[in-house]
Amino acid sequence: MLVSKDPKEVTEIVRSWKNKGENVGFAPTMGFLHEGHSTLFCKSALENSKTVVSIFVNPAQFNDPKDFEKYPVNTEGDLAICKEAGVSLVYLPDKETIYPGGVPEIQMRIPSLMKNLDATTRPGHFEGVLLVLSRLFHTVEPDAAYFGKKDYQQYLLVREFCKMLGFQIRIIGVDTVRSPEGLALSSRNARLTEKQKEESLLLSRALRLGENLIKKGEKDPEEIRTVMQDVLDSSSAVRTDYLEIVDANTLEDLSLLKGEILLAVAAFVGEVRLIDNLTVQVN
Amino acid sequence: MLVSKDPKEVTEIVRSWKNKGENVGFAPTMGFLHEGHSTLFCKSALENSKTVVSIFVNPAQFNDPKDFEKYPVNTEGDLAICKEAGVSLVYLPDKETIYPGGVPEIQMRIPSLMKNLDATTRPGHFEGVLLVLSRLFHTVEPDAAYFGKKDYQQYLLVREFCKMLGFQIRIIGVDTVRSPEGLALSSRNARLTEKQKEESLLLSRALRLGENLIKKGEKDPEEIRTVMQDVLDSSSAVRTDYLEIVDANTLEDLSLLKGEILLAVAAFVGEVRLIDNLTVQVN
Repeated sequence: MLVSKDPKEVTEIVRSWKNKGENVGFAPTMGFLHEGHSTLFCKSALENSKTVVSIFVNPAQFNDPKDFEKYPVNTEGDLAICKEAGVSLVYLPDKETIYPGGVPEIQMRIPSLMKNLDATTRPGHFEGVLLVLSRLFHTVEPDAAYFGKKDYQQYLLVREFCKMLGFQIRIIGVDTVRSPEGLALSSRNARLTEKQKEESLLLSRALRLGENLIKKGEKDPEEIRTVMQDVLDSSSAVRTDYLEIVDANTLEDLSLLKGEILLAVAAFVGEVRLIDNLTVQVN
Repeated sequence: MLVSKDPKEVTEIVRSWKNKGENVGFAPTMGFLHEGHSTLFCKSALENSKTVVSIFVNPAQFNDPKDFEKYPVNTEGDLAICKEAGVSLVYLPDKETIYPGGVPEIQMRIPSLMKNLDATTRPGHFEGVLLVLSRLFHTVEPDAAYFGKKDYQQYLLVREFCKMLGFQIRIIGVDTVRSPEGLALSSRNARLTEKQKEESLLLSRALRLGENLIKKGEKDPEEIRTVMQDVLDSSSAVRTDYLEIVDANTLEDLSLLKGEILLAVAAFVGEVRLIDNLTVQVN
């Protein structure tokens, strides 16, 4: 497995692979890797002859500087996970490489997909995501890029962004990986105490309850929302940031559920903000 | 010379060239080519082993739909000019290829470079430019792209946009080509009567006068602006859209001229909107 901090070297390596007819999959990450990430890598390794992973904690996408400072780092462990998952090249840029002279002042917005969920509760977050991905995509030039659906709005936004700007990259969404108890895997889980991990299970529990109501025929989002909110409110340790039931393709509000539905929740457990979601098909 | 309407074919051709070690220069245009364009092509042909030209009248960058409808077209003549200038491939996409399902709703702004000149008098113009260029760049994947400095703000904006998003494309600015009388060449000049062409000379005359004042030591932009405005106002056929004297690198207003200065003017002559500019070094 190759490791490089140099974007020029990364471009050269990938181009030389592509010249030889290799297909290149790419998974951009912020490190502190877990099984959710390695699932992305394995999927990429199955679908491509080479897989590139980037590890970069992107300051531009943190609306809360404290969250950025506290973001966990474990480069050595990360490299072991990459190797294990069949990754061919790890790109480890530093801040000065990605943002020479600081984060540039550019606004990139897709209004239709940025009017609710994390776009409103984390102002500037997705602008930072689109910015760093543009830079990473132009360095790695992959054929496909893999994103976890835990960050569902991010996945949708990146897919549309790439389509709109004509990036020649297929954007692949990969299902959320969970602990046996149901907690969606996240690097931020490392900051939870054992008790908080227990309390965090309310997020996936609320989602599954919502899913069950829909499968039983409930079509009124407000009814479902109320029941789900009750679950979240059953512990005072869980503070809801948002709880939304929207169209899974447009993220539009629905007065009556129809088609593919996204149930999405964000909540603080202690100081840690967690997100989770499920999609359900309504016939 | 190859001609293609198919973006996939264009990508394949350029990639096959690059695999053989060719360097690829690119000049995106809206057609109705003139010597200003062929100067771009020749510069590209001098600096690269292959030159690609695109011809596409981009609806997304016209703030005035009438201006779009009246934009002149002459594909046959354009292809002859490309051939003459040593172009290797002309990309001729149609609207449905560039914008399947219509112009996508995405906002891209660099606030610092979009607070005056054409950015304010043509709202939405540069968003449309950045959008179409993103798509064209991702199809052609050139090593360098050539832009006329007649559209000075566009050149600066594209250069910064590519830098910010990490496009691996050198953005090259090429000096404005003028008629022997001084009129900056523009496809829009075709819509001017002979009398209007005469009146249009006031733009370059005002710029040269401003340049001379600066060279003689005048450092107060308001003084220079007043004299230049008088020149423009000397014909009632010329209606000023903007007349600005700003820093040529940041487009910031200056209270005292210093460094590289941009003198920029936009004016309507009849129904036709013309722009022109000069840069001057102040020591």
